[in-house]
Amino acid sequence: MDEKVKIVAIAGSLRRKSVTRTLLEAARDVAPENMQIELFPLNEIPLYNNDIEVEEGFPEPVKQLRQAIQQADGIILGTPEYNGSVTGVLKNAIDWASRQGLMAKKPVATMGGSPGALGATKAQEHLRQICLHLGMYVLSRPTIAVPKLPEKIVDGQLTDEMTLKFIGQQMEQFYDWVVRLKD
Amino acid sequence: MDEKVKIVAIAGSLRRKSVTRTLLEAARDVAPENMQIELFPLNEIPLYNNDIEVEEGFPEPVKQLRQAIQQADGIILGTPEYNGSVTGVLKNAIDWASRQGLMAKKPVATMGGSPGALGATKAQEHLRQICLHLGMYVLSRPTIAVPKLPEKIVDGQLTDEMTLKFIGQQMEQFYDWVVRLKD
Repeated sequence: MDEKVKIVAIAGSLRRKSVTRTLLEAARDVAPENMQIELFPLNEIPLYNNDIEVEEGFPEPVKQLRQAIQQADGIILGTPEYNGSVTGVLKNAIDWASRQGLMAKKPVATMGGSPGALGATKAQEHLRQICLHLGMYVLSRPTIAVPKLPEKIVDGQLTDEMTLKFIGQQMEQFYDWVVRLKD
Repeated sequence: MDEKVKIVAIAGSLRRKSVTRTLLEAARDVAPENMQIELFPLNEIPLYNNDIEVEEGFPEPVKQLRQAIQQADGIILGTPEYNGSVTGVLKNAIDWASRQGLMAKKPVATMGGSPGALGATKAQEHLRQICLHLGMYVLSRPTIAVPKLPEKIVDGQLTDEMTLKFIGQQMEQFYDWVVRLKD
């Protein structure tokens, strides 16, 4: 646990009170000391249009996202479940970030939660398929699929002990995964 | 084939020379006479943000999209394949359009094509799962998954006879599907 690793965490919701963002903040707070996690917000990322990429290059916020990903040793993707899948917001960011193979060979962990019982499970299944398609190194277990997530948040903080413990376990496994797969 | 039906067709790409849009235009042109297909472009649809929906209501372009869907007897969704799935652009439009159950019980057909051999098959699988999750009535067959689609387009027109024939067959089946399931 000596090696320092740098992780970028991305939440697939733009809401100010996004519970998915709170989940990623919790991961940041319980992660091993040598795993530095920074959240990258998607609010400024425009909709993907290949004409823009070809004619004007990547828009400035997209450049920043791509730089953050390039410099990271690993990525955490947090997604709400919208309509049984990953959010359009997150998929759109991936559509920009993945250009020129930028996401290939990056270790990745997924997280999600929902108001209901299933914890964004379907969204994460699609997300993992997308990550595998991209040639990313997907951490298989433990999975973090938090049921009744909003009820576990007080004043913008995830307070549920059991959930925090599981997230801590995932972060330990992810640290190990990232270190083993580092170039 | 006497009953008139109204269909809205949506392409999940914003490119000016989108081959997916060309595919939908071909469907419009070969469809049965009583099936009127209108394309709705997604260029003005912003990224989904629940704060905006709650605080300001649906943005104007989203209102127009929702009105077009509400008034349609059926929907055709065309998607390119980005990263093994539906585009963020299309998923984002669905995330807006699906609010308040607006897409439930709508007959839907999917179409896709790709420069490679697989014809956006993976993207359409995710798309169909999303549509089923939404409670839409998904036309199962025939599927339109066009390999080497860009090579089959000349001056912005789909010219490949075999592909046009298959699309015509899908549109006939879709007409029947829509009529049978109309309220």
